[in-house]
This record gives sequence, C-alpha cells and structure tokens, in this order.
Amino acid sequence: MKALTYLGPGKKELAEKPKPELLQPTDVIVRVTKTTICGTDLHILLGDLPEVENGRILGHEGVGIVEEVGDGVKNFKKGDHVLISCITSCGKCDNCKKGLYAHCEDGGWILGYLIDGTQAEYVRIPHADNSLYHIPEGADEDALVMLSDILPTGFEIGVLNGKVQPGQTVAIVGSGPVGMAALLTAQFYSPAEIIMVDLDDNRLEVAKKFGATQTVNSSDGKAIQKIMELTDGKGVDVAMEAVGIPATFDICQHIVKPGGHIANVGVHGKPVEFHIEKLWISNITLTTGLVNTNTTPMLLKTVTYEKLKPEQLITHRFAFQDIMQAYEVFGNAAENQALKVLITNE
Amino acid sequence: MKALTYLGPGKKELAEKPKPELLQPTDVIVRVTKTTICGTDLHILLGDLPEVENGRILGHEGVGIVEEVGDGVKNFKKGDHVLISCITSCGKCDNCKKGLYAHCEDGGWILGYLIDGTQAEYVRIPHADNSLYHIPEGADEDALVMLSDILPTGFEIGVLNGKVQPGQTVAIVGSGPVGMAALLTAQFYSPAEIIMVDLDDNRLEVAKKFGATQTVNSSDGKAIQKIMELTDGKGVDVAMEAVGIPATFDICQHIVKPGGHIANVGVHGKPVEFHIEKLWISNITLTTGLVNTNTTPMLLKTVTYEKLKPEQLITHRFAFQDIMQAYEVFGNAAENQALKVLITNE
Amino acid sequence: MKALTYLGPGKKELAEKPKPELLQPTDVIVRVTKTTICGTDLHILLGDLPEVENGRILGHEGVGIVEEVGDGVKNFKKGDHVLISCITSCGKCDNCKKGLYAHCEDGGWILGYLIDGTQAEYVRIPHADNSLYHIPEGADEDALVMLSDILPTGFEIGVLNGKVQPGQTVAIVGSGPVGMAALLTAQFYSPAEIIMVDLDDNRLEVAKKFGATQTVNSSDGKAIQKIMELTDGKGVDVAMEAVGIPATFDICQHIVKPGGHIANVGVHGKPVEFHIEKLWISNITLTTGLVNTNTTPMLLKTVTYEKLKPEQLITHRFAFQDIMQAYEVFGNAAENQALKVLITNE
Amino acid sequence: MKALTYLGPGKKELAEKPKPELLQPTDVIVRVTKTTICGTDLHILLGDLPEVENGRILGHEGVGIVEEVGDGVKNFKKGDHVLISCITSCGKCDNCKKGLYAHCEDGGWILGYLIDGTQAEYVRIPHADNSLYHIPEGADEDALVMLSDILPTGFEIGVLNGKVQPGQTVAIVGSGPVGMAALLTAQFYSPAEIIMVDLDDNRLEVAKKFGATQTVNSSDGKAIQKIMELTDGKGVDVAMEAVGIPATFDICQHIVKPGGHIANVGVHGKPVEFHIEKLWISNITLTTGLVNTNTTPMLLKTVTYEKLKPEQLITHRFAFQDIMQAYEVFGNAAENQALKVLITNE
Repeated sequence: MKALTYLGPGKKELAEKPKPELLQPTDVIVRVTKTTICGTDLHILLGDLPEVENGRILGHEGVGIVEEVGDGVKNFKKGDHVLISCITSCGKCDNCKKGLYAHCEDGGWILGYLIDGTQAEYVRIPHADNSLYHIPEGADEDALVMLSDILPTGFEIGVLNGKVQPGQTVAIVGSGPVGMAALLTAQFYSPAEIIMVDLDDNRLEVAKKFGATQTVNSSDGKAIQKIMELTDGKGVDVAMEAVGIPATFDICQHIVKPGGHIANVGVHGKPVEFHIEKLWISNITLTTGLVNTNTTPMLLKTVTYEKLKPEQLITHRFAFQDIMQAYEVFGNAAENQALKVLITNE
Repeated sequence: MKALTYLGPGKKELAEKPKPELLQPTDVIVRVTKTTICGTDLHILLGDLPEVENGRILGHEGVGIVEEVGDGVKNFKKGDHVLISCITSCGKCDNCKKGLYAHCEDGGWILGYLIDGTQAEYVRIPHADNSLYHIPEGADEDALVMLSDILPTGFEIGVLNGKVQPGQTVAIVGSGPVGMAALLTAQFYSPAEIIMVDLDDNRLEVAKKFGATQTVNSSDGKAIQKIMELTDGKGVDVAMEAVGIPATFDICQHIVKPGGHIANVGVHGKPVEFHIEKLWISNITLTTGLVNTNTTPMLLKTVTYEKLKPEQLITHRFAFQDIMQAYEVFGNAAENQALKVLITNE
Repeated sequence: MKALTYLGPGKKELAEKPKPELLQPTDVIVRVTKTTICGTDLHILLGDLPEVENGRILGHEGVGIVEEVGDGVKNFKKGDHVLISCITSCGKCDNCKKGLYAHCEDGGWILGYLIDGTQAEYVRIPHADNSLYHIPEGADEDALVMLSDILPTGFEIGVLNGKVQPGQTVAIVGSGPVGMAALLTAQFYSPAEIIMVDLDDNRLEVAKKFGATQTVNSSDGKAIQKIMELTDGKGVDVAMEAVGIPATFDICQHIVKPGGHIANVGVHGKPVEFHIEKLWISNITLTTGLVNTNTTPMLLKTVTYEKLKPEQLITHRFAFQDIMQAYEVFGNAAENQALKVLITNE
Repeated sequence: MKALTYLGPGKKELAEKPKPELLQPTDVIVRVTKTTICGTDLHILLGDLPEVENGRILGHEGVGIVEEVGDGVKNFKKGDHVLISCITSCGKCDNCKKGLYAHCEDGGWILGYLIDGTQAEYVRIPHADNSLYHIPEGADEDALVMLSDILPTGFEIGVLNGKVQPGQTVAIVGSGPVGMAALLTAQFYSPAEIIMVDLDDNRLEVAKKFGATQTVNSSDGKAIQKIMELTDGKGVDVAMEAVGIPATFDICQHIVKPGGHIANVGVHGKPVEFHIEKLWISNITLTTGLVNTNTTPMLLKTVTYEKLKPEQLITHRFAFQDIMQAYEVFGNAAENQALKVLITNE
C-alpha cells in the first residue's frame, strides 16, 4: 500500500509499505478513506520529536471502513464506518479507569508517532473497542475527520479545562486549527465575548465568521494592552493558549482576571517564565493537557444534531496520491490561508 | 492604647496610638485579647511591601471582645467574643457574591496592611458582619487565633485547591506554620500518604507528630529524587508549595503525576521557570490564591467537634507587653523551634 | 399610591395605599416602572398560601428607578435604574454565605408575600445592596422584567440543577412561562434535543419557535410512551418538571435514563408517589428548589450580549391602571395564548 | 464442586455442581477462598427477585486465586490473588465509558443473580480485566471481602452521592452492614457529627465503636423528633437511607435541611410517598443508585494504608462446608448480633 513515511528530519515520501496486519486480538485494520495533516506532523518532520523512527507512517486523524477485526473486538465488524481517535486507550489500566486516556499505560498518543498512522491506505488500530467510534448513517464524514483530534483537543483542553460558562469573557490566543476548534466549541457554553488573537488578519477574519466577538492582531506586541482595554481593565475569565510559545503564554498570564482560568492547549518546546510573584494572590487556575477524547461520543452527537459544524475548518482538499502537495500547502498555512486540509482516498 | 507599629523597613515599636473609632456604620471596634505574628508581618518589616505606610499598626490575626458597634451592624453586639478574619469582605460586590472574598472590592486583605491591624489593644473591623465570627461558648480561644489566617489558608489554598481525596499521595513542600496548617487539614480527606518536606529536621519531627507519613529533608538538593523513590517513580497526586521561592516551586512541578494538582500556597517575590515544555502533556492543574476565608465557619465547627486541633501549632506564648520579644523569637523561628507564637492581652 | 391589593381568597382590588417608607438603613424605595404577574400570584388569590395577610400588595417582579436610599446602602443612589429580584438576601447569614439566598434568614421570598410587593407605584426593597441589580444603560427594560423571577428560576432550578450538557437529550414537562424560561436557558449549554411537553398545542408551537426540537402533547395520557419512542427507548438525560402536579412529576420519573437527572421546578401542593422500587437502582439525581437568584448578574450579561432574548416571553402589555384586566388575561392564559403580561407605569 | 444453590423461593442447598469453564476470551476462573452473604441473597431466597433461575449459584462477593485465564485477559495470570467485584463491567460500552459500570450493557450486577456466583469453590468472572482487582501482597484478605460490595456501596451511593463534607452533620438511617459501611467511609471526610439510627440497640452500640457520635433508636416512632432535637431544629446536611422501606425513607425526607442531600442506599420493594409539597422549596438533592465500584482501587489503597478497617464488620466466621449454617446465622442477624459472616475455603 501507499503511505506517507517519515525518513528523518526534513524528509518524507509517499512510499510503498506492507499492509498492516492484526497483531493483537483487540486490533482492527481500517481502510482509511479520509485523513488530514496536523501541526504535530510538521513538528515531527522538523525533527522535534526524536523518538519517531525513520520509516514511521505519519498521521493520527481520519475516518475509514473496518477491513479486518481481531477476535477480542466486540463493538466493530467488517464494513463498519468508523472515526479513528488520535488517542489509543486500553480501557483497563488505572489511568483509563479514571478517564485519563491520554495517559493510557498501553496507549495514549501513539498513532503516527510510536506506531504507524493514518496517512496510508490502511492502518492498524490497537484496542479498537475503546479507540474507534461508529459513524452514524448519513453523517458528513469530512466533518468527522475534525473529531479525531482538534475538536476534542480544543474542547477538552481549552473549553472544559478553562471552565467556560455562559456570560463569560474568553480570550483564545492563537487562531490556528486548534484555536478555531476551541472557538467553535466554546460557543457550546454561550460566553458573552470571545476575543481571538493572532498575527494573521486573514485568520482573524475567519474567526469572526466562526463566532469571535472581537479580534486582536498581536503583531504589534500590544495584545495585552488591547485586551485589557476591551475588558474595561478587568481582564478575561478564561484565557486559552493555543500556540505553544512563551510569548503567547505570556499574554495569557497578563490578561486573566482574579478567579480566572488559563487553559494551556499549545504544545510547548521551551519553559516559560511564570509570574507567580504577581499571580500567587490572584486565585487563578492553570491547566495543561493532552486530549483524552472522552468527549468524542458527545461531540459526535453535537455534529449529528448540527450544534457543531466542524467542516468549516476545512479549507483545502486533496486526493490521497497528492498528499505531498497537501503537506506543501499546510506547511505554509498562512500564505495559503489554510486551516485544515482534507485528504481523501475512496 | 499600645500598638505594634511599623516605622519603615527594619523598624517597629510598641507605640502609644489613639484608640480606633467607628468610621462607617458597618464597623465594629474589638478589644483584642489574643493575637499572633504572621510570616507576612516579617515581610512587611523587611520593606518587601512598600505600600505599607509608616505608622501602620501590624497584625491580621486574633480574637477579642466586641467593644463598640456601628448602627449598620446586625450580627454582633457589645460583649460578644469574636474571631477576627484576616480578610475583610463587604458581602455586596461582584467578587464577594462569587465567594471570592480575597478580592472584595472594598476589602480583601487590608488589616495590618492598608489599615491598622490587630497587634494592638483595640482594632477597627470594617464590614464586621461579614468579617467577624462568633466564638461558641467554652471554645478554646487560643486555638481559634489559628483560624484567622493560617488554617483557612492551608485548607482553602492548599487542600481544597489541590483537591485532596481519600487514598491519595500528597506532598507538602514547606513545614512552616502554613504548611503545617495544610498538613492538619489535609487529613480531613484521609489521604493515604502525606510527605512533608523542609530544610529543618525539627520541623519534620513535629510534622510526623501532626500526621505526616513520610518526611524529606531537602537540604541536600535531592528532594525530587527522594519523593519519586517514595512513590515508586509515580509522583504525587497533590503537591503543595508552602514556602514561596523558585526552588520549592521547582520541586512541586517535578513530582506531580499526570492528572495531578500543584497548589501554590506560598507568597512569592520572584517569577519561576515553569516547565511547560514537559508539563503541557501531563494534564495537571496548578492553582494560586489568597485565602477567601469562606470555610471559616466550617473550620470553627471542626474545632468545636475536635476534628481539628490547631492549638498544636502554638509553640510560644507572650503577654502583649512583650510583643517585641515575641517578634524576636518568631523572627528566628528555626533556632527557637517556633511555629506560632500566641500573644495574650487579658 | 395605587397598588394591587389582596383582600382574601378570590378578592383583589387596585386600591389606594400609603407610599412605602424606609424602615431599615439597608432599605431602598423603588418607583416601579414595569412589573408582571406570576402564577404564584394566582395561587395566592386562590387562597393556597394562607400566610398572606389581607391588604398585602402582591408582586415580586419588576424594574424601576431608585427613589429613596437608606443610610446603610452602598451600591445604589437616587435615580438608578434597577432590576428587582424576587429574592431578598441579607448577604450576612449562614445561608447567604453559602449562596443559598432562597433561604436567607432575614429574607428569601418575602416580596408580595410576607411584605408588600411590586404591583404598585412604589415598593420598599429590604437589603437593597444584595437584592437589586443595576440595569446597564440602553438595556431593554421590558426584557429585564423577566429576570426578576422566571429566568433565574428556569435556569438555576431547571437547567443548572439538571446539569444540562452539550449533546444531551432534555425533556421539559410544562410549557408555561417557567418551562419556557428553562427552554431558553437550557440552550446556553447546547443540548442536542429538547422535547417540550404540554397540554396546549399553541404553547407547543411557541416552544418550537423558542428552540424545542420536538414537542409532545400529553393530553392523551401517552407522554411517557411518546418520549421513550423519541429517544429510541433510552429515555432522557434531564427531565424537568415545570408544572407542579403529580401527573407531570410522574412523567419525569418514567422517562429519565440511568445516570440522569430530574430537576423539579414546579410548585407542588400535594405529595407524589415516587417509584423508588424501580429507581433505587438507576443512579438518578432528583433536585428541588426555590431560586437563589445568584445567577442574575450572569443572566443580565447574557441579555446585554443578546445570548438570551427574554422579551420573547411577553405576549401581552398593559398600563398599570389596567392591571385588573391584565390579571383577567393572565388568569386565562391558555385561551388568551398568554405567557407573560407586561404592566407598565411610566 | 460444591456450591450454594438456589432452588426456588425458600429453598437452597449446598449442591454438587460442575466446575465453571471459560466461555469468553475475556473470562477468568477464580478459585474462591473467601466469600460472604449479602442481604440481597436473602431477598433472592424470599423469591423477591423472580428473574433468578432455579439452580443458580448465589453470591457476588469474595476473594480468591486465579485458576484459569482467557486469551483476551491482560491484567491477570494464574496464581494471582484477586478481589472479585460485585459489578461486572466490560469497559467498552457507553455507560462504562461514563464510569456508570452499574449499568454496563454487558454486565452490571449479574454475579450470583443472572450468572453463577461466588458461594462456590470456583466462579467464572466475565470481563475479568475490568471486574477483578489485584490484592497487594500481605493484605488482610478477610478485610478485602468487604470491598466486593458493601464498602463501595456505602461509600459511593451513601457518602459520595450524599456529598459528605468536613464539619457537616450526617444521619444514617439503618445500621446493618451497608449502613455501617457508610458510617466507616463517611469518616474519610471528617463530618462533625454522625447520627446512626436503627431499631436494634446492639447495632447502635457497635455503631458508636465504629465512630457514630450520636445514636437514635427509632423503635418508638420518634426518630424524626429526636434528630431534630439533636440538631437544634436545623436538621442534617446529609441523610442516608440504608434500609429500603417507606418508614426509613420518610425519616430521611423529614430531617434533611434546606440545601441538604438525601442519599438513598437501600433496595426498595415499594414506592414511597415523597413530600414534594414541602420539599419543592428546600433546594434538596436526592440520589439513588447501584454501586459502580469505580472507587474500589481507592478503597483498596485506604485499607492498605489502614485508613479504613473493614474487618471490623466481620462478626462470625464459617468454613465453606458450613455455609448453610452461616445462612442461618446471617438470616437472623439481630438475635445473633451479626453484621457480616466470613466464609472461608482454603
């Protein structure tokens, strides 16, 4: 089969690879019909995650059709249309029993990272009963690709951790795909104001269409001042960090009001200076996290009932044989006005 | 009247000051019968809080007897024995209505800081109905002095923010009075293990008497390693920072397990380096805060029913006229094996 | 002044009454510019609440302009436009400190019940700082009359107690004003489905306009069966009782799924048969309650930001001198297709 | 093998039965070394649960040693010492993913009810990875038998559902094994007062040894009055029903204070009259439920660390061949002063 394969820092190709086989009775083989590219895939390609081996098939998002089923799988059968979760969970370990699937002792985020992933014609999904979801008949499968990772990430790690409530003022620092996913799902809780922050005016325009009530271009270094003005000097109830660099974390820690929440969603490569000499007195809560995907069934239901329209995040579409070109476009997201690229193989 | 008065960095005296008067109808004048000294008072004396004016009477803890009552006060009358809260709350502003009394728009921590405090024969208490508590007849008033500040601080900002649960493993980094208050009140929730950390072996001995199951002397710089060993490499569910310096914060961020809590209780003077490049993935929650004292009624009840014995924290006793000497002892706490000093004026 | 006065069961008149005076320093006198009639007022007139004295001025909802202010009032001054809460809270008693304002030891629901109410030219509001709210400039004051009682009641006692979550299935049994208030505010949390139940097809039509996804006319006694069919036999996550009779409670207890919530909002006059022989095993939560109104500031903000449009509930308008006619219309709500009647006096 | 077998209402025998075999790859066969009898077993014998077939082996509690392991089992191997949970959970269905194991779509309470149980030499445990727990080396296995059902039931359905908090006043109506389990585990949260209620003075004496602060013998029909007096007319924060009859439910609904909780733990056979005409205004929460056993790992840890001593509940001991006699004793618990009987087969 064809698969997008990592060949060391800066190198990838659409290679011929053997079709995956069942290794455990709890495995399923899925024929991938739609996948996408995540910012994390770009990080891997930069060599930022040295634990990724040469030859690894990338990708941790997608939908597909069940091709083969292990003896120990109970919930799925050949032919089922399924949503693939970016998180593999065994459902049996201490962390899984607490709902902390991100830290499953025999899973977590492994797909397209420690085991082969979804940017391929077929993928092996371990612990399938706890890591795949049935797609309701008639559902928009394009939209559901967004539920593999970015929607639950934005929702669980941004919105739920940040405890967004009706009537609140929320700032989301970073308007890339995950920031946009947080923007869409924050609206589940009817905040009064959502201030989106980014360096890119195009993304801020899109954010307004997606429901932002205010936007702030932070390229002049005055985001903190602007947000404090927008909030009459009070600051925000919830500040979400959706980039992963010290500068954006710093905005968050300066705009959160006493009693407020900072929800870190971004993947960071460097420590940050945390101004605890000012914040010790502020009764704030700061959260971090990798998505557990335990809200995936709920998100599926909200998509089915049209409370959430994640297909809005798709800006570009490619056939699977053109995935190298899709990487090109997504790798230069700003100039291509790209959010998510959809890659189809049907 | 006599009052312990701040005269600028490094200077204090037991001065003659005018007896306080009612300024607002919601004020009460209390004759202070017992007070104590807080680490924060030492910070003020070091000049660390430049907003404190020369001539300010220090102290934000104590019990006493109501001497005079404003027309707008409803809950108290002359002669009532009262516990003075370190936090003044109006009960009417937005923050008070949320229970965020620490950030009361007409109060918060002001006593012995922005207005004259309790290390005096008399003190004026603004918004008395929401800032004083009746002492039940027969109660041990010495013990209740500990409820003005350190017990609610350790409990709300350490134990409740840290979400201590039965069966958990808790580490408290810092075994001074507030760390000890956290130790005593953490036991309300029956954790399996409480690891106390300090530089001082005497304090660690005392911590064992107060319920610590393990102690770690951190003076060799190996606290992190020791705590990881004590927890089979898993780390702790809850790490409380009860000192207020980068080194102790650093211990906390290295020992918390995925899904765990860091509850910052310490008052910090410098920023810290927060290792978000490791912790972004760990699903941790970090909290900060000034005590709201909304658990004071509950703590009073636990003392009345002997579920909590805060008098254990009192190591030294002085008459009010000897308060300068009490400062001497408390200012050299380690060598005097001092936790809290009780200052009586009856 | 003129005031709608209760004269014993079945009797009321628009009588001449003395203008109220400040009795306590914490009182405010408000000139009532807009008020409305509540189902509870009809209950009083039926004689169902014998504690209401003859001569009592009815009404516990309204907006107005501050006319006179007691010395102990801090937040309000003459001329302020204010929203009157149906709940009086002192902010100082044990229950108020827990946010349980409904059970304030010197307040709770007393307005138009144990003290004179708002269906008058003027009303005395005790504990004004905790019982009135500033109306933002430019706000739609008609809409805000709905925030005195029914919106916070539907929201706190129905939606919050019922713990409505995104993606859930909710049934609201009763489509009168409070059921409709629950319907409007349930949408703050983006449930997938809201099934409205009533005997009156007109109300069900209106419910659809207000956001119901399904409606069930229960007049054939088959509501339980219909709701189970609509939910594929699974039942609902949240069932709200918004009528106050055994039959509607019974629907709720038969349609709630394991792990679900029954939120009782209705005011009941008789006990109900609770099928604990079936429900003991179902892990359900049943809640009751009088509104605390602690969400009023939040609801005000959602109205200001147009996340909530309570003016939709107003079906009829009257001048204050025609209040007897307003009672006539509201007392025959079904035939007049009435939800809330707005009574204006400007 | 020998097994205690149900032969229709009123009939049981210690019969010879075939040793169970693995039916599913996720099954484990356990050699039962210790078991006990539950009040529910007596209900089955009375014919109250007609869905139990003749020939069914009873029992849903016990510890043992793994004898045989299915191919799909990951966490256990032959020779492991295990605690058997009364609840079977697949870990894969919608309810399991919510932690609602009691309502597992392929499990829940089935052991000794819909499939053969633990009062036998061997038992088949379906979904073993999610339904068995490793026993730490050196643990007191007698004590752990109490963790199969009654401790998690008393804790989850009584204490956690009732939201017991430090300083509160709790009443537990019913001092049988489950009421005692609630009494022991309520103390995890340090309530100020625990009032135990029962008809039997001996049980009330035992309750005092287990930590009750007050006891009330309800045989004179004056329990409500006595509890109101003990609480200065205020009522209790948490009332737990641990019997399962209308009279004890009625006590609970009359003693709960505004804002309080009724946690129903008892298994009921009849509906109750719920006084919603009084309680609609009281802001109470009433919960029901079958144990989910998701706190079993935590309870295991508290036993290991001696925060909980469930062996106190064992009053009588029998060898397995004398199980008929054990039923005799437990079936007349009051006259035998029996709480739990331990049945050993080693």
